[in-house]
Amino acid sequence: MSAPLIDNLQYCNFSPKIFRQLREGGVDAIHVTIAYHESFREMVLNLEQWNRWFEAHPDLIFKGLTGDDVRRAQSENRTAVFFGFQNPSPIEDDIGLIEICHQLGIRFMQLSYNNQSLLATGCYEAEDPGLTRFGKQAVAEMNRVGLVIDMSHSADRSTLEAIDHSARPIAITHANPHWWHPALRNKSDTVLKALTGRGGMLGFSLYPHHLKDGSNCTLDSFCQMIAEAADRYGVDHLGLGSDLCQDQPDAVVEWMRVGRWSKAMDYGEGSASNPGFPPMPDWFRDNRDWGNIRQGLSQTGFAEPEIDGIMGGNWLRFYDENFGPQP
Amino acid sequence: MSAPLIDNLQYCNFSPKIFRQLREGGVDAIHVTIAYHESFREMVLNLEQWNRWFEAHPDLIFKGLTGDDVRRAQSENRTAVFFGFQNPSPIEDDIGLIEICHQLGIRFMQLSYNNQSLLATGCYEAEDPGLTRFGKQAVAEMNRVGLVIDMSHSADRSTLEAIDHSARPIAITHANPHWWHPALRNKSDTVLKALTGRGGMLGFSLYPHHLKDGSNCTLDSFCQMIAEAADRYGVDHLGLGSDLCQDQPDAVVEWMRVGRWSKAMDYGEGSASNPGFPPMPDWFRDNRDWGNIRQGLSQTGFAEPEIDGIMGGNWLRFYDENFGPQP
Repeated sequence: MSAPLIDNLQYCNFSPKIFRQLREGGVDAIHVTIAYHESFREMVLNLEQWNRWFEAHPDLIFKGLTGDDVRRAQSENRTAVFFGFQNPSPIEDDIGLIEICHQLGIRFMQLSYNNQSLLATGCYEAEDPGLTRFGKQAVAEMNRVGLVIDMSHSADRSTLEAIDHSARPIAITHANPHWWHPALRNKSDTVLKALTGRGGMLGFSLYPHHLKDGSNCTLDSFCQMIAEAADRYGVDHLGLGSDLCQDQPDAVVEWMRVGRWSKAMDYGEGSASNPGFPPMPDWFRDNRDWGNIRQGLSQTGFAEPEIDGIMGGNWLRFYDENFGPQP
Repeated sequence: MSAPLIDNLQYCNFSPKIFRQLREGGVDAIHVTIAYHESFREMVLNLEQWNRWFEAHPDLIFKGLTGDDVRRAQSENRTAVFFGFQNPSPIEDDIGLIEICHQLGIRFMQLSYNNQSLLATGCYEAEDPGLTRFGKQAVAEMNRVGLVIDMSHSADRSTLEAIDHSARPIAITHANPHWWHPALRNKSDTVLKALTGRGGMLGFSLYPHHLKDGSNCTLDSFCQMIAEAADRYGVDHLGLGSDLCQDQPDAVVEWMRVGRWSKAMDYGEGSASNPGFPPMPDWFRDNRDWGNIRQGLSQTGFAEPEIDGIMGGNWLRFYDENFGPQP
């Protein structure tokens, strides 16, 4: 079987149109965000919406739980949809909800989203005291059941402590190296070395605020950055996590940024003059453009097996090893 | 493989002691009640307690989801524990929670418990207007996902309408025939004929209020009743559903009866002079006494294959056919 195409982070305003585009683009699996600020019960409402989509569009999509579901998607020409949280809000203050969420199919959970959480610190806080008491317990429980720790929106010390406390590899599902584009959301060389040195995965983001020159970033610049990352961290630890937010109204990025925690607007990676979703680069508009990235990687000099790994093979290996109970 | 031993309804105050007694008694599978009056979130707390038991006692018990889990329990000398609700309160007013609950492992749900619910009428109401609008939608959705309709505590018209509306066989997991002991909770000949005529299952209760002569009921009387039921309804539609409530304090039967719906006490099948859990008959004290019932059935004249069916084989066939998506 050929290598799969996996995008390990999307938060589109999903619809039959996007499900068809996933098939047109040959995307075998996506990891979608199920919760930003939701309580447990609110997150379950989002699962219910996905259940309705799975029931209505079985020819296009199905719920993914294991690496084998990616292989099944490849053989059946469908897209396996894996679930994750960008914030631990759905587990509330209850460690028992970690296994419940895993039983409901959740496979990734960020320990914090921009702000301090009950578990860890987010990347926009002024201070980062590291993993909390609950955070350390949660890491062990996530390790036990096979719910992958994601530190994409976490601060450095918390991220390094999560890597250190975790008995299993963790992920940064959607971010780029800070040395390429110094956004607060991009990751330091220290963090990326620690992450990949312990078997963890980095998914490269295509969200313009994470790109050098933003929406004007060139495909060549993006692929040269991946080549440099492969030299520094090893090509086997690299994948994709586009952060594609297709068809979302700007009200959604406001919700992502302030949820219910602030009455004032917080612009996050944007600004008062540029408050909404930024336009995507012209070489990656939606799920039909993955071929451009494959071609870009080829022109940058990657060998075919390396490209196969970056485009999905590495995530598939990671899924196989990390979505089940601790061996 | 020999026929399994399945008890299709228990609500014990579970503990390692009872898990060991299940093994001593050779019980391959039990269906346990996860909710009486709980909201969705409260029901999830009960699931979390079971997850902790499964983690702590993997040598004795595991979570059962399919008929094959009963066979696995037999081959591994463990007990498969299946989950059910006695009331639809955990799905609240949300049909999407039916599939969510099935994904969490729920395999039986009563449409009402003694009182009127959002779906159907309970057996202690004065009037029974039959399945509600939501009730008819819920029956179809339960059919679709493979969540079995249980009408043990429902009123007759609602029960007959559920049998009629359901495209798949339903169950009365724990009750006895009204012609043997005319308790309000026991079932009319009309209901039992309709139930079994459509492939449904009846689980015989050992709860003393459902037994002729209560706690003094004899094993012979119980087995003669089963013989009569086999003549009337066919032996393939009969199984066990003991309603064993071992080690529960009397406060629990009060909770079962009034939940949060009444400030005044309602004695249900008991009375002001006999308000608590009644003592079990001396031939069925706990999970170590199933051999007595097997022996009683043999002395009543049942053939070995018939006894195998009543003791668990019939429930296993029903599990195989009804716990998955609608074919």
